[in-house]
Parts: sequence; C-alpha cells; structure tokens
Amino acid sequence: MADKKFVEEITSREEDYTQWYTDVVKKAELMSYSSVKGCMILKPGGYAIWENIQRELDRRFKETGVENVYMPLFIPESLLEREKDHVEGFAPEVAWVTHGGEEKLQERLCVRPTSETLFCDLYKDIVHSYRDLPKCYNQWCSVVRWEKTTRPFLRSSEFLWQEGHTVHATYEDAEERTLKMLDVYVNFAKEILAIPMVKGKKTDKEKFAGAESTYTMEALMPDGKALQSGTSHNFGDGFAKAFDIQYTDKNNKLQYAFQTSWGVSTRLIGAIIMVHGDDAGLCLPPMIAPTQVCVIPIQQKKEGVLEKASEIYEELKSAGIRVKVDDSDKSPGWKFSEAEMRGISLRIEIGPRDIENGKCVIVRRDTREKTECSLDAITETVNKIMTTMQSDMYDRAKEYLDSHIDTAVSYGEFVEKINRNPGFIKGMWCGNVECEEKIKEETTATSRCIPFEQEEIAPTCVCCGKPAKRLVYWGKAY
Amino acid sequence: MADKKFVEEITSREEDYTQWYTDVVKKAELMSYSSVKGCMILKPGGYAIWENIQRELDRRFKETGVENVYMPLFIPESLLEREKDHVEGFAPEVAWVTHGGEEKLQERLCVRPTSETLFCDLYKDIVHSYRDLPKCYNQWCSVVRWEKTTRPFLRSSEFLWQEGHTVHATYEDAEERTLKMLDVYVNFAKEILAIPMVKGKKTDKEKFAGAESTYTMEALMPDGKALQSGTSHNFGDGFAKAFDIQYTDKNNKLQYAFQTSWGVSTRLIGAIIMVHGDDAGLCLPPMIAPTQVCVIPIQQKKEGVLEKASEIYEELKSAGIRVKVDDSDKSPGWKFSEAEMRGISLRIEIGPRDIENGKCVIVRRDTREKTECSLDAITETVNKIMTTMQSDMYDRAKEYLDSHIDTAVSYGEFVEKINRNPGFIKGMWCGNVECEEKIKEETTATSRCIPFEQEEIAPTCVCCGKPAKRLVYWGKAY
Repeated sequence: MADKKFVEEITSREEDYTQWYTDVVKKAELMSYSSVKGCMILKPGGYAIWENIQRELDRRFKETGVENVYMPLFIPESLLEREKDHVEGFAPEVAWVTHGGEEKLQERLCVRPTSETLFCDLYKDIVHSYRDLPKCYNQWCSVVRWEKTTRPFLRSSEFLWQEGHTVHATYEDAEERTLKMLDVYVNFAKEILAIPMVKGKKTDKEKFAGAESTYTMEALMPDGKALQSGTSHNFGDGFAKAFDIQYTDKNNKLQYAFQTSWGVSTRLIGAIIMVHGDDAGLCLPPMIAPTQVCVIPIQQKKEGVLEKASEIYEELKSAGIRVKVDDSDKSPGWKFSEAEMRGISLRIEIGPRDIENGKCVIVRRDTREKTECSLDAITETVNKIMTTMQSDMYDRAKEYLDSHIDTAVSYGEFVEKINRNPGFIKGMWCGNVECEEKIKEETTATSRCIPFEQEEIAPTCVCCGKPAKRLVYWGKAY
Repeated sequence: MADKKFVEEITSREEDYTQWYTDVVKKAELMSYSSVKGCMILKPGGYAIWENIQRELDRRFKETGVENVYMPLFIPESLLEREKDHVEGFAPEVAWVTHGGEEKLQERLCVRPTSETLFCDLYKDIVHSYRDLPKCYNQWCSVVRWEKTTRPFLRSSEFLWQEGHTVHATYEDAEERTLKMLDVYVNFAKEILAIPMVKGKKTDKEKFAGAESTYTMEALMPDGKALQSGTSHNFGDGFAKAFDIQYTDKNNKLQYAFQTSWGVSTRLIGAIIMVHGDDAGLCLPPMIAPTQVCVIPIQQKKEGVLEKASEIYEELKSAGIRVKVDDSDKSPGWKFSEAEMRGISLRIEIGPRDIENGKCVIVRRDTREKTECSLDAITETVNKIMTTMQSDMYDRAKEYLDSHIDTAVSYGEFVEKINRNPGFIKGMWCGNVECEEKIKEETTATSRCIPFEQEEIAPTCVCCGKPAKRLVYWGKAY
C-alpha cells in the first residue's frame, strides 16, 4: 500500500488542476523558482528528464545530418534589427546588457531570445558556393524572453531549448527540411514521450516573426487546453535578403539562400507532467524516465533481503535498465508513495516471503497493475512490462486526444462547444485574420493549426459564414 | 603524399607560434569570431570536441555521485555582493543587464561569471538537516567575463564550462570532495586528452575569489608557458556564513555547512591544440577525436573502390569506431592534408591494388607511421593502433613536460633560467606575497602551484633568501 501521508500534500487534479500541477512539480522536485524573477532552477529530477530528451533528440537530429555548434549569448542591437518582422516580434521582450564591467557599452547587446540573426551573420561568412550548401546546424542553449507571468516549464523568462538553423540552395530544399524536422519532433513525442500530437501549419497571424511558414505540433492537456510543443519554420529567402546571404550556383549565378529554423524546449517536460500525471504525482513513460525501476526491499532488516535487492539491481543495471534501490530507513509504504510521486515507471517489491518463493512483485506506475515474477525471469519481465506500459500510455493519451476533437459548423455551435467541451474544435475558416481575432476576443480560443489532412466539413467559415478555404483546429491554449 | 597546397596557408610553429595557433584554429574550422566583441562561435569541428569532453567527464562526475542541474543565467546585484571577496573578484568583469523589454529593472542583474552565489541561494533553501547532506550538483553552461584581450579557446568574453558546486557537513568532507574532483580532472586529462598535468595548491594570491583553498592542474604548452586547465576550490564555511546555510546535526545543533566548487572549460580545447598539434595542423588523441578514422579511397572511380571503402566504413562503425569516408571529388593528396589538418587520428588508404592484395594502408596522424593491414583484420588493427597512439601521445607530452621542469636556488639563477628555458621552474618560497609580486613584476612569471609532493631543494626562498616554507612551481602562464 502506498503511504497516504506522502501524497497528502498534493491537491487532487479534479479539485484544482493548476494547483495540482504546481504541487507535482514541487513535490517531485523537478524545479524551483530562484531569487531571479521569472527564472527557474532545474533540479536534478527535472534536469535528468531534459538530459534524456536531449540525448534522444540529438541522436535523431544527427541521423538527418545535423551538426551541433555554439553561438554567442549576446546579439548586438543593430544585428537584431536587420530583419524587420523579426525585431518587431522579439524586441519588446528581450533583456538588454548595457554595461561590461565598469564601462558603458557603445552598443546595447540583447541576451538572445532566439538566434536567427547570429546564424545569418555566420552563414553570410561561410556560404559562398552551392558546394557549401546545405549547412544544418543546431545548438542546445538557454534563451531569455522577459515574461510578465510565468508557470513552471510552460513559461519562464529563461528556458532551455534547442534551436536548429539550416541554409539551403532552394526553397524546396528548405521546405523539405522544415517538414522533416517537424516529423522528427512528432515521432520523438510519440515514441519516447508517449504523447500524440496534432500537426499542421500555423496561420499567418500565429506564425513566427520573420517566417514564411511555421509548422507546429500541438498536444492536448487534460484540462482541454492545447500546448504548442514544437515548431519548424521555413524562412524562404527573407533572412538571406536582409543579411545578404548569397551563393554562386552551378551556372555561376548569384542566388539568395533559403533558410529554416526549428526548436523544442523544456516546455516538453510540462507536457509530460500534464499528459501522464495523476493524483499520486508524476508518471513517466519508461523511455524518458531517468529512473525506470525502483527496487523496494520489504522487511529489509531480515537476513538476505538487502542482498537480494542488490542482486536484482545489479542484474537490471547490467541489462542497461535505469534502476535504483531504495534502502533508506523509511517504511515500504512511504517508499512506494515517493517512487510514485517521482514518476518512476516500475517498482519491484522484494521481501523475505518473496525470496523464499523465488519471486518478486512488479508494479506499474500508470495502472498500479501487479505482476508476480519469478526471480529467474526478472530482466525479461521488466523489459516486457516497460514496452507494454510505454505503448499503453501512448494509447490512452491518443484516445483522450481523439475523443476531445469536436467539430462545429456554425458560430453558435462553435461558441457553445468551445466553452462546454474542453479540447480541439475542427471548424472551417475563410482565411481572414478578422475571424481569428473575433474568435480570440470572444472565446479566448485561437487557431492552433491548419492540419495537413484537410477535410471539408462545411462550405462556409465557422465564424463569418463566408466561403471557407481551409479546415482549422481551434482551441484554447497555454 | 599529403598535398602541400592545403597546408600552405598555415604558418609553421617554429616561425610564429601565436600565428600557428590562430591558423590551426581557423583552418581546422574549430571556431570563428562573431560580430559580438570577444565572443566565439564554436563551429562543428570545435563543438564536437567539446561534446566528447562533456560526455566523458559527465560520466566520471556521475560515478562519484554528482547530479546535474540548471541554474539561472542572471544574478541579482545584491546576491552577487553577499560574499565580500567574491564580489571584489568578479564585479569588475561582469556584464550588466539593466532593462527587460521596455522597462528599466529595479535591480541590475549580472550575467553569471560563475554561479557560487546562486547555488548558495538554493542550498540555503534545501539544506536543513544532516540528512540533506551532501548535495553534489553540477551544471554545464556558458559564463561571461568581460575580457579586454581574447584568444581562441584560451580567453574569451563568453565561454562554455561546467561548474560543480557541493555542500557538506564538515570541512573534511568538503576537502575530500575538492581533492577528488581534482583527481577526476587529472585522470581525465591523462587518459582521454593525453595531457600530463602538474597538480597542487594555489598560493593565497592566486586562489579563487572567496575560496579557502584552490587546487589546480597546470599543463605545459610547447612555447614553455603554463596553462591553468582546471581548478577545484574548498570554500570552508565562508559562503555558508555569508548566505546563512545552516543545518541541524545529529545532536540537534545548528552548524554551518561546508562547500566546494570545481570547473573546467573549453580552454581544454586550446590545450589539446597546442600540446598535440604540429605544422600539418590539429592532431587529436583517438579518445577525444570526433572522427577517429577517415577512409580515403584511391582512384575512387575504378570499379569496386568506393564499395570497399564503404564496407570498411560499415565494419568500423558497427564496432563503435567514429569513422567517415571522404568520397569527395578532391585528389587523394588533398584529402590526406585535410584529414591531417582536422586532426583525424588515423587515415585508411584503399585503392585498386590494395583491394587486389586484400589489404589497406593505415596511417597514424601523429607519427605518419604506415601499417599495411589485411582487410580481414581491419577493426582489430585500427583499435590496436589507436591504443598505441593514445599512449604514445601521452608519453611524448610527458617527456616534454618532464624535460622542461628546471630548478633554481638563487634569484639570479631563477631569472636567467625563466628567461632562457621555457617551462616550469621549481623554486623554494618563503610564503610572502611580496616575493610573488616581485617575481611577477620582474619576470612575468607567477607561482603556478605548490605541488603535493614537496621536496626541499634549498633551505631559502629563491627570491628573498629568507627561510623557505614550501616548494613552488613557477612559470609564465597564459
């Protein structure tokens, strides 16, 4: 039995969703706020999840030919201003460095909110011929965007992310890379995070400052709100023109280059917490869990119990499973609760009677399902249960997503459903920003994306009733 | 034969050491300067070395119980000022953020030059009882120190590093951790970077701002200058008193905690370049080389050559060797030179005649030694050569270091030798800062460390002639 005391401090999800989220983040020791307004400390529990995200994504990036680099933290004001839409989008929320040591700087430097301008400055220097293309660079770093209101992992003044920046000979090459990286993200979210995504293109209103097209993946949280979880931008040759990135093509003609950028951030940790968590705390899919298995000895003072726990630990560890033993002085119930709170995928209970019978009990974090397991078959069984658990967690999240996509054909129906049913609403759109603005003002919902798979569920715009051009996923968002 | 043209652009090391270094850094595409004064861009070739350093060190840290975290980029001015020596050491060289978006900040924030103050602020919150101790945290990040003069990897306004920060119950625990991390660094430098270090304690004059003791490892560069390559600090309870970090001990008494910090940076890449490089460019020990083997096809248009090159690639790759094939249109000579410039540890030459004879030629980057190798034994032979090369490179560097440690017993001898012989000079020291200052002023040499293995090579101070207390390694330093 899990110890109620340990989890008492967290609010139930039904009662107060926002408080539940904050409680889990705190109690699972994922992050804490610092003395610096709006800036998070990623504690070991939270940072270890980010390390796993990094390792897995980095491997997938490199398989597509991406190379890592590191660009400066600072952007001179004049460089940030080079591309008009871009500076307008970011200048209001950047932190400015004005002094270095005792000296006032001749030009203000902003702390990077994103690094398009720095990559352009580099590409201008190193791209000369079609032979130099493509360049597919990425960096793992932190960025700063001065936020008024913050929420753990979802919005903070500084956050960790990766930003890929590529440069290509043609628009088509850039578009192919933009879509390829969106697919890398979506597959990663599915296979590793067990989170299904809706994917598509952003409307012009919602696209990235300076982009020609922005593609997005959007996850659905249990409160029915969408979470934009990763974006991939095709810049066309807009930045190349602003930064004068030209190359000589095979016919010896000067051409502007085409660029992309794409990024995901520690926001993904927020998605994991919300999609999989429950009233006992965090629940991590095995593929992303820093600790996959916690071995908990029962009556650990009895002879042979700790030895057996340690044997199990060694066996699982040597099979590449991320495992630990909780041999602290706490009661087994307390340890169960703590392992659950921290989201450890499986726990193994092993006591004197189990040892006598040559078995142990394996408990899944997500369903609490118990499996009696012969000590001879422990690695095999753990691996099997983890595989099933990973796919069950995805299936449950997918079922939730699918059952929270509704449709609306009239504005009345739209307003009624978006306020009553949490989730996405599929609705046709005329293509005018005025309808997006009206919907946002009156319902707080926004266009989340224009899905790749288009249907015509009605001939007219769900807002204005004029002829519709596209199907859009609408939703309230974080 | 390597193509002379490719390497023509780099200055020989004998002719102009400084220019040689700059040329190698540039030509091997390790870094470049950006539009931001004093800030480097780490290009793929340079960043990949850093990734290998990170992976290997991170593993070694974690084996000693270290956990990774991420702390904010910014430090409020009042927090930086909490420890007197510390702020005096760093305030003159920090970058100040004064505005967030359009608003002037109520308090200036400095961009972290190092994060002791932030870790103290965290430890104050999470350390309450002896049960909470020790905490051994580390972060990989960039830091900013406003530098007037910069050199690639050796000194720049922003650089990448790791900073470990630990908190302990007793002075002895802190001292043990401080020395343990120095050993982790020294062993890593030896086993992975093939760089021998001199290790010891810094004098009070040279220690870290706020530290009780600073330990250092110092490498010797081929120009005879020392490079401080990693430091580990014991803070005693100084920071704990300034930040009020107290815990209840087993007897229920309040005690101040004891702290350490330790770090290495991208400066290590500078050490690798200088210790192992030569007039053909970079030379990377196999353990740290991003590409360990480059397969270069000869007469690659002839039937079967590219196929065989590709087979070799697949075989080595599946054995876990970091390998690539250069199947570009360039001449073999050009490819040889390029692989040498980039420091790739081994190249494999494979042409039609080799294939006929069922063999290939393996060439070591460091000695250019050629080995004929049967195609059946290629993985085994490559691994064997890499192991030998790694240890030969260390041995050569060690021999250089050992033969460049001289001794001096009088001031005249000291001045003469430090100006004539590049390298370390062992000399006795009375313990007074005045002698350090005089030596620095008159020779530019500084005390590099008080080695752990003390000898008494003379009874009197090499500078003032008064009774000596300690043996010191002196040297000119980067």
